[in-house]
Amino acid sequence: MRILVVNVNTTESITASIGEQAASAASPGTEIVPLTPLFGAESVEGNYESYLAAIAVMETVRAHREPFDAVIQAGYGEHGREGLQELLDVPVVDITEAAASTAQFLGRTYSVVTSLDRTVPLIEERLHAAGLSERCASVRASGLAVLDLERDEQAAVAAIAEEAGRAVEEDRAEVICLGCGGMSGLAERVAERTGAPVVDGVTAAVTIAESLVRLGLSTSKVRTYAPPRPKKIVNWPPAAR
Amino acid sequence: MRILVVNVNTTESITASIGEQAASAASPGTEIVPLTPLFGAESVEGNYESYLAAIAVMETVRAHREPFDAVIQAGYGEHGREGLQELLDVPVVDITEAAASTAQFLGRTYSVVTSLDRTVPLIEERLHAAGLSERCASVRASGLAVLDLERDEQAAVAAIAEEAGRAVEEDRAEVICLGCGGMSGLAERVAERTGAPVVDGVTAAVTIAESLVRLGLSTSKVRTYAPPRPKKIVNWPPAAR
Amino acid sequence: MRILVVNVNTTESITASIGEQAASAASPGTEIVPLTPLFGAESVEGNYESYLAAIAVMETVRAHREPFDAVIQAGYGEHGREGLQELLDVPVVDITEAAASTAQFLGRTYSVVTSLDRTVPLIEERLHAAGLSERCASVRASGLAVLDLERDEQAAVAAIAEEAGRAVEEDRAEVICLGCGGMSGLAERVAERTGAPVVDGVTAAVTIAESLVRLGLSTSKVRTYAPPRPKKIVNWPPAAR
Amino acid sequence: MRILVVNVNTTESITASIGEQAASAASPGTEIVPLTPLFGAESVEGNYESYLAAIAVMETVRAHREPFDAVIQAGYGEHGREGLQELLDVPVVDITEAAASTAQFLGRTYSVVTSLDRTVPLIEERLHAAGLSERCASVRASGLAVLDLERDEQAAVAAIAEEAGRAVEEDRAEVICLGCGGMSGLAERVAERTGAPVVDGVTAAVTIAESLVRLGLSTSKVRTYAPPRPKKIVNWPPAAR
Amino acid sequence: MRILVVNVNTTESITASIGEQAASAASPGTEIVPLTPLFGAESVEGNYESYLAAIAVMETVRAHREPFDAVIQAGYGEHGREGLQELLDVPVVDITEAAASTAQFLGRTYSVVTSLDRTVPLIEERLHAAGLSERCASVRASGLAVLDLERDEQAAVAAIAEEAGRAVEEDRAEVICLGCGGMSGLAERVAERTGAPVVDGVTAAVTIAESLVRLGLSTSKVRTYAPPRPKKIVNWPPAAR
Amino acid sequence: MRILVVNVNTTESITASIGEQAASAASPGTEIVPLTPLFGAESVEGNYESYLAAIAVMETVRAHREPFDAVIQAGYGEHGREGLQELLDVPVVDITEAAASTAQFLGRTYSVVTSLDRTVPLIEERLHAAGLSERCASVRASGLAVLDLERDEQAAVAAIAEEAGRAVEEDRAEVICLGCGGMSGLAERVAERTGAPVVDGVTAAVTIAESLVRLGLSTSKVRTYAPPRPKKIVNWPPAAR
Repeated sequence: MRILVVNVNTTESITASIGEQAASAASPGTEIVPLTPLFGAESVEGNYESYLAAIAVMETVRAHREPFDAVIQAGYGEHGREGLQELLDVPVVDITEAAASTAQFLGRTYSVVTSLDRTVPLIEERLHAAGLSERCASVRASGLAVLDLERDEQAAVAAIAEEAGRAVEEDRAEVICLGCGGMSGLAERVAERTGAPVVDGVTAAVTIAESLVRLGLSTSKVRTYAPPRPKKIVNWPPAAR
Repeated sequence: MRILVVNVNTTESITASIGEQAASAASPGTEIVPLTPLFGAESVEGNYESYLAAIAVMETVRAHREPFDAVIQAGYGEHGREGLQELLDVPVVDITEAAASTAQFLGRTYSVVTSLDRTVPLIEERLHAAGLSERCASVRASGLAVLDLERDEQAAVAAIAEEAGRAVEEDRAEVICLGCGGMSGLAERVAERTGAPVVDGVTAAVTIAESLVRLGLSTSKVRTYAPPRPKKIVNWPPAAR
Repeated sequence: MRILVVNVNTTESITASIGEQAASAASPGTEIVPLTPLFGAESVEGNYESYLAAIAVMETVRAHREPFDAVIQAGYGEHGREGLQELLDVPVVDITEAAASTAQFLGRTYSVVTSLDRTVPLIEERLHAAGLSERCASVRASGLAVLDLERDEQAAVAAIAEEAGRAVEEDRAEVICLGCGGMSGLAERVAERTGAPVVDGVTAAVTIAESLVRLGLSTSKVRTYAPPRPKKIVNWPPAAR
Repeated sequence: MRILVVNVNTTESITASIGEQAASAASPGTEIVPLTPLFGAESVEGNYESYLAAIAVMETVRAHREPFDAVIQAGYGEHGREGLQELLDVPVVDITEAAASTAQFLGRTYSVVTSLDRTVPLIEERLHAAGLSERCASVRASGLAVLDLERDEQAAVAAIAEEAGRAVEEDRAEVICLGCGGMSGLAERVAERTGAPVVDGVTAAVTIAESLVRLGLSTSKVRTYAPPRPKKIVNWPPAAR
Repeated sequence: MRILVVNVNTTESITASIGEQAASAASPGTEIVPLTPLFGAESVEGNYESYLAAIAVMETVRAHREPFDAVIQAGYGEHGREGLQELLDVPVVDITEAAASTAQFLGRTYSVVTSLDRTVPLIEERLHAAGLSERCASVRASGLAVLDLERDEQAAVAAIAEEAGRAVEEDRAEVICLGCGGMSGLAERVAERTGAPVVDGVTAAVTIAESLVRLGLSTSKVRTYAPPRPKKIVNWPPAAR
Repeated sequence: MRILVVNVNTTESITASIGEQAASAASPGTEIVPLTPLFGAESVEGNYESYLAAIAVMETVRAHREPFDAVIQAGYGEHGREGLQELLDVPVVDITEAAASTAQFLGRTYSVVTSLDRTVPLIEERLHAAGLSERCASVRASGLAVLDLERDEQAAVAAIAEEAGRAVEEDRAEVICLGCGGMSGLAERVAERTGAPVVDGVTAAVTIAESLVRLGLSTSKVRTYAPPRPKKIVNWPPAAR
C-alpha cells in the first residue's frame, strides 16, 4: 500500500520530519510518500496561506505520477480536504480530523495545542465543520510559530506541555492533540509531562488511512464529493517554471 | 465610494450580469467595479472549483491597481472570504452571508434556492461556519446548472419558483434567498409567484458594503483576520501568460 | 425616506441623543423621526419594564399620524420587535440585532458591553431568539445604570472600555457592540482604546433600515408576522390622559 | 394554599373553563382563583396580542388585593412569565413550560398540538427560550382558532387527535401536550385515540405550583428575576374606565 | 399512594436518610418505601458502579412484592432510569432530572454541586441525555466522597456552600441543585449561605411522582419505553445467597 | 496482539459470526477472541436488556483469564462502554462509535440502518452521548428483529438495502452504517445495491483497536475513566451456577 503524505508548508525539512513520523506508524508493507506542495508559503499560519495551501496540495497530488492508495493532508486546521475528496477515488484523511477522531476513543474530552494564537480559529472552524467540536474542550496556542517549533525542540516541548497542562486542569481535557504538523515527534515527551494520552495527527492519520484501505472503503461519491463536472478551466494550472 | 464585485466564475457574461445587478442597488456616488477572476472554472459547482475560485478571487483583488473601498465576493456558498479579510483593510462581504443576514430581518426563517443538488452542502457549510444556519429552514436545489440559468431565464424562474414554493409550504420558510450569483435579477418574479420576500445576495451585499463604509467600520484585525505574517511564498503567484 | 426611531425609555434626553446619533448615520434624503414612548419607565433595565416598553412602543407607533418607511426599536435586549412586525407593513429593525448582524461582517466573534448586570440575561435571550448567539463571545456589564451613562460620559467611556478590553482578551471577542441605546456616541472613543471595531446599534440599524427600503424589501407576511386577525380588544388602548 | 390562574384571553368563558380544569387537579386545601386580564384581546393568537396579554396579566396580578401563594399564567406560547417572576415573591408557572416539563418525565420526546398555524412559532420560541426544545419532536396546528375550540368540542377533539396521531407516527413523538389554554378538558379523549399520554398544561401547572409551595421554593432573586429597581414610570397604569 | 424510593448505594444509612427526606416532602396519604439495592457498591462514584447500580435497582424493584404507584431512583447522575421505565407501568422519576426540572422553574440557570470531581461527567451526561443541560450553568464538585458527606455534616455544608457560592458568582447560576442523594437534608442550610434557592432532588422527585400519579399520567409505551419483548434470558437473575 | 470481541447477546451463533467478521478484518498477527456474555438476553433490543448486557460484558471481560490488548464491545447502541474504560488499562472500542467515526471520513453525512424501530432511540442516544450525532442524517429501522437477521440473510439484505436507499435519497445520507452486530457480513451486498459506502461496525472497530494499540495509546485515566475507587461491593459478582 502506498500513502501520500502531503505537507501544507513548502519547507522541505518539515516534509521530511512529517514523512519520518508517518513512516514510524506505518505497517510493514505500507510505503509512505512525503510530498511538498508545488507552491505556497514556507509555513501556513493564516487563512490566505491556508487557502493557497489547499489548492497547492490538490495540484501537487494531481501532478503526482505514481499510483497511490490514500492521501493524508498533513496540515492542522487547513482548508482543502473536501476538494481532494472530490478529485480522488482513494480515501483522504486530514490530520486535524484524524487526531480528534482518535482522541474521542481515548477520553471524554480533548484539547488541541497548536502554534500561534492566530491559528486557533482555523482549527476551531475545521473541527466545527467536521462535526468534531462537541467534545473539544479547548484549542490552545503555545505561542510558538511553526518554524520556531522546528528550530528549538526543547523550548517547543516546554511550551506545549505548559498549555497541555492547563487544558487538562482548567479546561477539563482528558486527551491532548498536538495541533501542528511540525509537532510530529513530540507526543511522547508531552504525554510524560501531563499524564494524559497525547495524539499526534500524522501517526493517527496513517493508521486511519491504512484501515480504510484494508476495509475496502473510500470516499462516498453520492453527493458532496462527487467528481467535478466537466468544465472549461481557464489559465490553470499555471505553467511550470 | 468604489466597490469591487468579484465573480467566482470565469464566465464574463455572468460578471456582467452581476455587475448590472449590483449597480441597480448602489447609491448615487457608488461606483461598482465588476471583476472576473484571473483563472478558474467557467462555473463553480463543487469544492475543487470553489477552492480554486477562492484563491483566484484573492489574487484578482490583489492584482487590482485602482483604490477601492469594499469588496463583494459574488459566489454563493464559496470558500475564501476569510482570506480576503486577512489581506485587505476594507470591508469584505460574501453574498451568501449578506443574503442570509438580510433575510433574518424579514422573517423568522429563510430558505435558500440554489442551482444543483451538489452545491447544497457547500452552502449549508458556509452558513454553518458563519453562524447563520440556525434560522435556515432549508437549502433546496432547482436542478439547473449555473450556465443553464444564464441560458433560459423563463425555465430558471419556473424551476426556482417551484422550489421556493415548497420551501415556504413544506419547510416553513418565510423568506427566500436566491442562492446563486447567476440568479441575480430574478428576485422580483420569484417573489410574485411565492408571496414571500425574495432576497438577492448581490444587491443585499451592495447595501451592506456601503453601510459598513459609511459607518467607518472595517474588518477587525484583532485575531482571526490579522494580516498575514511576512513569509517566503514560493512559485506564487504564477507568471502571467 | 422617513424612519421612526423609537426609544424604549420615557426619558426625553435619551430620545434626543438617540435621534442625533441616528441622524448622523442617515443618508441624504432620509428623515429621522425620534419618538418617546407614550408610557413606561424612565429607563428600561429589567423584564417588567421591557415588556411594558414593548407594548408602549407598539402603541406609540400605531398612534403616529405621519407616514413612515421603516421603524427602528432603539432598546438593547428589549422585547417587542415581533409585535411591531405583525402590525406594520414597513421594515422593523431592532438595534440589538442590527448591531450583532453588523458585527458578524467584521470579525469572527463579537461581545456586547451593556449597562447593568441584570440586563445581561435579557440581551442574551434576544440574541438567542434571533439566531445570533452562536458567534457571541460574551455579554458583559459595565455596571453603570442607563441614566448614569447619560450623566457622566467620561466615566461611561472608561467603564465600557474596561469591559470591552476584557471581552477582547479573555473572551476572544474581535468586535464590540455597545449594548445600550444610551451609549450612542461613545463608539469611536471605545474603539480607540481597544483596537477592535465598535458597533453602535442605532447607526447600524439606520443603515439596515435604509437598505431594506431601498431594496424594496419588507417583513414577510407568510406566517409568524402575518397581520393580527380581527379581534375584539377590551379596555385598550387606555384613554389619553 | 391559594393559586391565581390567569387567563391570557379576555373571554370570561375561557377563564371559567381554565378555572374548572385547574380545580380538578388541585389538592384538598388548595384554592384556585381564576382571573381574566383587565384588558386585551378576546383570544390571543399572535405576537401583538401576546405582548398585550403579557402586560395585562402582570397588571391584573398586581391589582389583585387578596394574598396568594403562586401564579399560573394560563396561555400557551405567550410572553410575560419573566416579568411576573420579577414582580412577585411567589412561584410563577407558565403552562407551556409546565406541560413540556411534565411530558419529559413520560417519554423521550413530546409534541405540542395547538390551535392555528400562526401560533406555532410563538410556542416554538417559548420552548426554545426555556431550554425545553431539545426533546420537542414538533409543534403542530389543528387549524382551529381558540374561540372555535370553545364552540365545538366534538370537532376540536377530532382535529387535535388527528394531528396528535401524526405527531406520534411521523414526528416520533411519545407524549402529546395540548397547546392551548382553551383545550383544557380534552386530554383524556385525545389520549384514548392516540395511545400516548396527553398532558394538559393547566393541570400540570397546578401540581407544579403546589409542589414548589410545599417545598418552600420560589423564584431566585439572584439576577434575572431580581425585583425591578425603583423607577419613575409615566402614564401607567392606565386610569380605570 | 405508595412510592418506592430506591437508593443506588448499598449503604443502609443512606437509604434511611433518603427515606426520611422523601417522607418530609410527601403529602398526607403518601407512603414512602425506601429500598436498598440487593447488590452493588456501598457508594456509587463512577461508571462501573453506576451501571451495576442501574441493574441492581431494576432487579430490586422487580423483586418487590407489594404494589406501588411510582418509583424514584435516588442516585445523582446514575444510569438506569430508561430500563425502569420499560419494565414498569407506573411513573419513574430520577432525582437528577427532578432537581433540574424543578430548578428551571425557579431561575434562568442552575448549577449542580456534587461530591467528587469524577462524578461531574456522569451528571453532565445524564443532563445532556435528558435534554436538560441547556440551562445548566455548571456541575461542580465539593471534593467530598459520598460516605464523607454522611460522616461530617458540618464539613459537608461548608464545602457545598463554598462551591455553590462560586457557581452563583462565577458561573452565573441562579439556582443550586444538591447533586448527591446523600446530601438530602442540607438544602436549607446551603440556601441560607448563598441567597439562591437550593433544590434537593429527592424531595423534588417526591412531588413530581405524586403529581404524575394524581394526574393519571405514566410512562409512554409508544416506542422507547415499550415493555421488553419476550426473551430467553440466561443465568439471570443470580441465585439468592 | 490479542483483541477481545464481546457480543452483547447471549446467542452463541451471533458470537461466532461476529468473531468471523472481526477476524476477516484483523491484521496478520492479531488474534481475535470472541466472547459471549456470562448472562443476559439472547438478543438485546431495549433498555433493560442493554443495561443487563452492559454489566454482563464488564463481568465477562473481568472474568477472562488470558491477557489481551484491546476490547471491542460488539453491540449497536448498547450501554456500558464507559464502565469498561474505567475497569481496563487497554483501549475499549464500541462498534456504534467505530462505525460512525469511520463513516465520517467517507462522506459528509451518514445514516444507520438497524433492526427494530424500538432500538432507534438507543442508537441515537449513544451517538448523542459520544458527540457523533451532528453528521448523522438518520437512524432507520429495517423492521427485522436481531434473531430474524440471523435466520434469513436474503430477507435481511433486502430490508436493509431498502432503508439504506431511503436514507441516501430522503435523508441525504452519503454513507451507511450497519446498525446491528448481527448484520456483520452484509456490508458488501448492501453497498452494491445503494451505491454508497457501507460501514460495518465490527470490522471498523477491529482496525481502530489495532491502530490504538500500535500507536501505544489507551484510555485516559485523567478523570472520567479513572479506575474505580476501592469499595465494598455486596452480593456481587453472583455465584457461578
